[in-house]
Amino acid sequence: MTYCVGLRLDQGLIFMSDTRTNAGVDNIFTFRKMFTWSNPGERVITMMTAGNLATTQAVVSILNERMKAPAEREPSLLRAPTMFQVAKMVGATLREVVQAQVQSDDDPESASTFSATVIVGGQIKGSEPRLFLVYPEGNFIEASDENPFFQIGETKYGRPILLRGYRPDMSFEEAVKLLLLSFDSTLKANLSVGMPLDLQTYASGSFKVGREKRFEASDPYYAHLSQGWGDALNAAIKSLDDFEFE
Amino acid sequence: MTYCVGLRLDQGLIFMSDTRTNAGVDNIFTFRKMFTWSNPGERVITMMTAGNLATTQAVVSILNERMKAPAEREPSLLRAPTMFQVAKMVGATLREVVQAQVQSDDDPESASTFSATVIVGGQIKGSEPRLFLVYPEGNFIEASDENPFFQIGETKYGRPILLRGYRPDMSFEEAVKLLLLSFDSTLKANLSVGMPLDLQTYASGSFKVGREKRFEASDPYYAHLSQGWGDALNAAIKSLDDFEFE
Repeated sequence: MTYCVGLRLDQGLIFMSDTRTNAGVDNIFTFRKMFTWSNPGERVITMMTAGNLATTQAVVSILNERMKAPAEREPSLLRAPTMFQVAKMVGATLREVVQAQVQSDDDPESASTFSATVIVGGQIKGSEPRLFLVYPEGNFIEASDENPFFQIGETKYGRPILLRGYRPDMSFEEAVKLLLLSFDSTLKANLSVGMPLDLQTYASGSFKVGREKRFEASDPYYAHLSQGWGDALNAAIKSLDDFEFE
Repeated sequence: MTYCVGLRLDQGLIFMSDTRTNAGVDNIFTFRKMFTWSNPGERVITMMTAGNLATTQAVVSILNERMKAPAEREPSLLRAPTMFQVAKMVGATLREVVQAQVQSDDDPESASTFSATVIVGGQIKGSEPRLFLVYPEGNFIEASDENPFFQIGETKYGRPILLRGYRPDMSFEEAVKLLLLSFDSTLKANLSVGMPLDLQTYASGSFKVGREKRFEASDPYYAHLSQGWGDALNAAIKSLDDFEFE
């Protein structure tokens, strides 16, 4: 499994992804699930993937190939005029890869086996930063004021704290903390999500990749946070009145 | 879907279940998912069910019928010598009902359609209170010091707070608060789990049903807790140091 979150903030966008991939518990690898394409000063596009690793790697490879062949007529992420067109392109590529796998397979359940989901966000000169969730069918939805963040993969353990803790006016520093707590809740409960974690920020209007960091399992801030969270959460529970039986 | 939790405490056992059943979003009913059998002074057995409603109702009906026909040779919950035998009986009945449904159906996926899971706990004179999780295949596991609680149904949203907040030496009053917070996290994130919530406690060695309560959506304590939790959680997040970029 996987866990990736993309948040839309007033300040810009922030992305976090784990790196665990597994096919059974004894077949575990570390793979980067966050990919960035940029033309500094003009656009930055960041993508995170969840699902079948062969599918997501094929999608990234196809998107890369199209960019490296400038003579080719295929549209490329670096030439798409808007983020909406970027999401459309990612969706079309994802759908194409999934369908090709399904057609070469006789199992009726293979559509779900080869499936994948993508979060893609960024900014292209001339419009605001935008964040999309792309489904394996190739269609997609955009983050809005009502739904300002997207999660993919093993989303449930880490969702309650995001719902309670997210504010659009958070600083990147606060958002990193909130994301790490959401990942901590997930890591504690589910073996298929694993460290290290990749972080990237994008400051609105900067048109360049913001801060990047890989949090290793031994990261002192993460360890401090994870340990402190148990105490802070228990203090929060304690601060509320106990139930009283009538 | 459904959400039920059974906790083993030093003081005894505590059970909470929601009451929402649905087959699609416009086909919603309220059904009790908590069932109790007792012979005051000698045994109390409490069961909670998740999964296909026809299956779980059939299981409860069969278990009830066997008790009402004392001449019948079938073993009954009220005559089982130990909680282990109770769990075995529930498992055998559950497996029987699921298998009967599957055999009368041609769809190879029907095993999962008719599936259900059960938490059963209680105490029978002569041994300690025990808590079991029964699988649709009829086998089961018992709560232990390492795994002192079981969840069934929509378990993920409410798991992180249980993992962090549970202590075996909690009072029932604290445990009710923790359970309501776990249910609140689930209710906020998932439409298929719904109020009212049923609560029951069992005090170790009492051999009678403990406290019982149904929390309606309008319950003042629940409303107070749910509202207070947002603030308490945000204060907890705030109490931890923000991340600092190097």
